[in-house]
Amino acid sequence: MRIALGLEYDGSAFLGWQTQPGGGAVQDALEKALAAVAGERVRTVCAGRTDRGVHARAQVVHFDTAARRPRAAWVRGTNAVLPSSVAVLWAREVDGEFHARRCALSRTYRYRLINRRVRPALEARYAAWVHAPLDLAAMRAAARALVGEHDFSAFRSAECQARDPVRRLARLDIEERDGGVEFVLQANAFLHHMVRNIVGTLLQVGLGRQPPTWVAEVLAARARARSGPTAPPQGLCLEAVEYAPRWALPGAANVPSAVTIG
Amino acid sequence: MRIALGLEYDGSAFLGWQTQPGGGAVQDALEKALAAVAGERVRTVCAGRTDRGVHARAQVVHFDTAARRPRAAWVRGTNAVLPSSVAVLWAREVDGEFHARRCALSRTYRYRLINRRVRPALEARYAAWVHAPLDLAAMRAAARALVGEHDFSAFRSAECQARDPVRRLARLDIEERDGGVEFVLQANAFLHHMVRNIVGTLLQVGLGRQPPTWVAEVLAARARARSGPTAPPQGLCLEAVEYAPRWALPGAANVPSAVTIG
Repeated sequence: MRIALGLEYDGSAFLGWQTQPGGGAVQDALEKALAAVAGERVRTVCAGRTDRGVHARAQVVHFDTAARRPRAAWVRGTNAVLPSSVAVLWAREVDGEFHARRCALSRTYRYRLINRRVRPALEARYAAWVHAPLDLAAMRAAARALVGEHDFSAFRSAECQARDPVRRLARLDIEERDGGVEFVLQANAFLHHMVRNIVGTLLQVGLGRQPPTWVAEVLAARARARSGPTAPPQGLCLEAVEYAPRWALPGAANVPSAVTIG
Repeated sequence: MRIALGLEYDGSAFLGWQTQPGGGAVQDALEKALAAVAGERVRTVCAGRTDRGVHARAQVVHFDTAARRPRAAWVRGTNAVLPSSVAVLWAREVDGEFHARRCALSRTYRYRLINRRVRPALEARYAAWVHAPLDLAAMRAAARALVGEHDFSAFRSAECQARDPVRRLARLDIEERDGGVEFVLQANAFLHHMVRNIVGTLLQVGLGRQPPTWVAEVLAARARARSGPTAPPQGLCLEAVEYAPRWALPGAANVPSAVTIG
């Protein structure tokens, strides 16, 4: 039996998604909790491997198990064991062909920063901080060059293991929201550090250190050395993973409300 | 010289605002940081004493000091010493008649909760959780009985030290916002636990355990034993403190932007 789960977590205290030899990763906490419910070892596969300090509002994972449990057990039973910083949002039995990473059509990430002279305290764990004024219009103009299908080698980390650096960026919006500035990026997939490197590069334009046209040059050069510094992890959140309707998974914005879940 | 400060903090890791013999309160952290800048002991007075686990987006404090420092030193110098969960937003030299608590015309608190079947992880530190569906219309109808000048004895904790239990509640709105339910309360002042006891009482109505008319009865009875349980602290945030224009303090929604602060 293959089960898919929707997952929310605060990445502040974790070493990232991926399991670590000594534990401390979100995957370690989740697999430990699932094993308690399943009564057997469980290995999970996720849609988007988040880095240390990065959050998720709607991560999707799948796992195979011989255990037969009602959906509520996979949700409430697992949540009873998980630390307070991780929660299973929903569970669905899925076809054996479903694969959380390979079947994902796209991922949406949101990067939040506070742009003011004093550092944030209330949002210190969930937003980056830029103290100098940002030119949002210049960043938006620069961002347009990145939308579409491109070789994003300029924005991948040295540790990136992807064979093909071409990704299709469907959306890169820069919004003012709740007293902060938010970058919303949707792509078929992302290279390692790609969102944080794009944000760090656009910030060079927003701070007036580079003209908007520079970002297109950085993209074309395909060299990481040309782009801006990697933006810090705490501003980043995996907002949604999109799948074909045939899998019948709850939508990202579709966390079961108090009224509708069974 | 009397100085007023605007302050933001994440109350999760603190024992509340008020100084404790062994430290661990927000006031302890602030006074330690201010002493480092002033080069002398500093005692602060705040506008609203928040409880353990309660947050503030715009607390206001004042203190007297013989030290002469530029505004930027009181802001940036203090922030350099404060833990990441506390930040000074602004500083102003004020008339000796200014008093952060006594001059405050009103306080605005916001109480946030997540109403869904699964517990929140990403907002676990900043919102309460109610898993059963809430009837917002019933809560709004019940809330109307509380607006105005009343004896709020039914909603004060046993430890409340206020001599007079009469308060003027100017506003009690219940809003759906960012996937949560938020109670916004503005009053000339609040009794101890008053916001959390009002929220806990309204929740009894929202959950269908009491009719909306019950809240008016609870208020009239003036007995804490009649009202609902105290809502948990993490959903509560001191949003704003209002003062007369003559003090020329930055507004609550007026945290210096990246552009305008000197």
